[in-house]
Amino acid sequence: MSDWVVGVDIGGTTINVGIVPIEGGPPLAFQTRPTESLRGPKFVVDRVVSMIEDSIRQVMEERGCQRGAFAGVGIGSPGPLDRKTGTVISTPNLGWRNFPLRDLIQNAVDLPASLENDANAATFGEWWLGAGRGVDTLVGLTLGTGIGGGLVLNGELYHGASDAAVEIGHMTISSTGRKCKCGNYGCLEAYASGPAIALRAVEGLEAGAESILLELVDDLSEITAETVFEAVVRGDRYATDVVSDTAKFLGAGVANVINVLNPEMVVISGGVTKAGDHLMVPLRAEVRMRAFKVAEEACVIVPAELRGTAGVIGAVGCFKKEMHGAL
Amino acid sequence: MSDWVVGVDIGGTTINVGIVPIEGGPPLAFQTRPTESLRGPKFVVDRVVSMIEDSIRQVMEERGCQRGAFAGVGIGSPGPLDRKTGTVISTPNLGWRNFPLRDLIQNAVDLPASLENDANAATFGEWWLGAGRGVDTLVGLTLGTGIGGGLVLNGELYHGASDAAVEIGHMTISSTGRKCKCGNYGCLEAYASGPAIALRAVEGLEAGAESILLELVDDLSEITAETVFEAVVRGDRYATDVVSDTAKFLGAGVANVINVLNPEMVVISGGVTKAGDHLMVPLRAEVRMRAFKVAEEACVIVPAELRGTAGVIGAVGCFKKEMHGAL
Repeated sequence: MSDWVVGVDIGGTTINVGIVPIEGGPPLAFQTRPTESLRGPKFVVDRVVSMIEDSIRQVMEERGCQRGAFAGVGIGSPGPLDRKTGTVISTPNLGWRNFPLRDLIQNAVDLPASLENDANAATFGEWWLGAGRGVDTLVGLTLGTGIGGGLVLNGELYHGASDAAVEIGHMTISSTGRKCKCGNYGCLEAYASGPAIALRAVEGLEAGAESILLELVDDLSEITAETVFEAVVRGDRYATDVVSDTAKFLGAGVANVINVLNPEMVVISGGVTKAGDHLMVPLRAEVRMRAFKVAEEACVIVPAELRGTAGVIGAVGCFKKEMHGAL
Repeated sequence: MSDWVVGVDIGGTTINVGIVPIEGGPPLAFQTRPTESLRGPKFVVDRVVSMIEDSIRQVMEERGCQRGAFAGVGIGSPGPLDRKTGTVISTPNLGWRNFPLRDLIQNAVDLPASLENDANAATFGEWWLGAGRGVDTLVGLTLGTGIGGGLVLNGELYHGASDAAVEIGHMTISSTGRKCKCGNYGCLEAYASGPAIALRAVEGLEAGAESILLELVDDLSEITAETVFEAVVRGDRYATDVVSDTAKFLGAGVANVINVLNPEMVVISGGVTKAGDHLMVPLRAEVRMRAFKVAEEACVIVPAELRGTAGVIGAVGCFKKEMHGAL
């Protein structure tokens, strides 16, 4: 009888790995390391494998268990991807194409593995053990290097015809707007991803805005979304405006999602939630203005509960569902 | 044993009624009359009831059957609405609020009735007997006075948490764009509904565009989307540009839907399909440019097959599903 599953959450910036009890719970031996995707896919896989082995070893020591106590590895990765073959088809933020991620990891650690879109995994985690417990229709929105989304319908992740559903980051919110990495114009991701928030902040500073952001960095190129959130927490007005604009762009995207899916809950996760009510209050106001009233009233918009661990927990949930058919 | 179900499709401009064999098939005694919603909800209900009675009488005479051969009435109406109570909650294009449409019709004709969103009904019709036969995941987009949408997942209409799902017409495609009837800015409907197509055509003519549209009407106020499509069919370049712009706006909306739902098929219905390839070719090109490749490649975009009758047929399908639990 296996007791543990390894959860792996590969993002554009960081890799998280943790060991989750098979019945669900907070991850043990949780580790975070930078993805450093520019060093190539082999480097990333090697790093993931060494993190998995470290975490397994740590839990074996702490709990005095054998390797047979580990049922397998649930992997969440940026997509689009093909779950059946375990292949990442393409991912603009990592630069991978037709990359057999699941089997490379599975073979290296000699444990069965499953592959799921990272945003789907995080959404499933929030539904399983986080903000969305007991909710029938849940949309998750993950804001990081990219913007991803997931949809849980009646306890099942919705995948669509080719595992490409709920790519909310590439929703057009301004048809003649900013160019996005994906080739389209005016995608939500081009306004509200971490890099886009930093870029908009820098553009304003270059145009002469006053802000403590200028004191937090030596050079404008060092400004990240994190720096902006830090300035907000310190009460900086300009940074608060940048986050408030972010909330408006997000609001247009979330309203679109609500008008299409009419969910009970939208869960927002990722670094941007560190801005707290500076984000959530104008976001809810924008959604109220834009979404259909009947749909808006049926939906609560909340920050994620499993901050930083939803992806790992959800990847484990997806592994369990794939292997056992149920949670 | 009942043989027939009455299908009713109430739109912003016209009401369609027909009698559909319970096992499915083309409607008999099909009638179309103007909605004339400005004359008030009672007028519209009286008109629907008299159309139902006319159609029933006609089929009874032609087929020599009794009133007992009619199982009930399936109604499609603009929403949002509450299917359980049979109430239309609000509809900007008809001006109704908390209107008990289903029971008023049910009591007047003394037959059980069901109420479904008109765009859902049309989508279900196309899935049951039209372009979408045998497809698992189908999105229907209905372009008329308003823009509605429907989603069939594994043979079931998807309704969301409060019967307000797939309000594609109120998807923001340009967050600072044209004001929409719903109060939001930049909704797809504000660009690509029938009235919006006419408005954009008139704006260009007022600005000096040359077109045979000027010969087709005595006054610019007479221009409708139909006039624009007629000019396209006659080879008018300006009208073709107006339709091509429409295709681009629609393309942004359809790409958003594809990025969220990753369906196998999108079925376009309504008057605008009269423009044929003048619409479909630039629409597909715009979607190809905007949608995520994996999702776009999995999806065909086709015009509806049940032109003008999908709403009636689908309303009957919904009635059957509601009463018998299956088609």
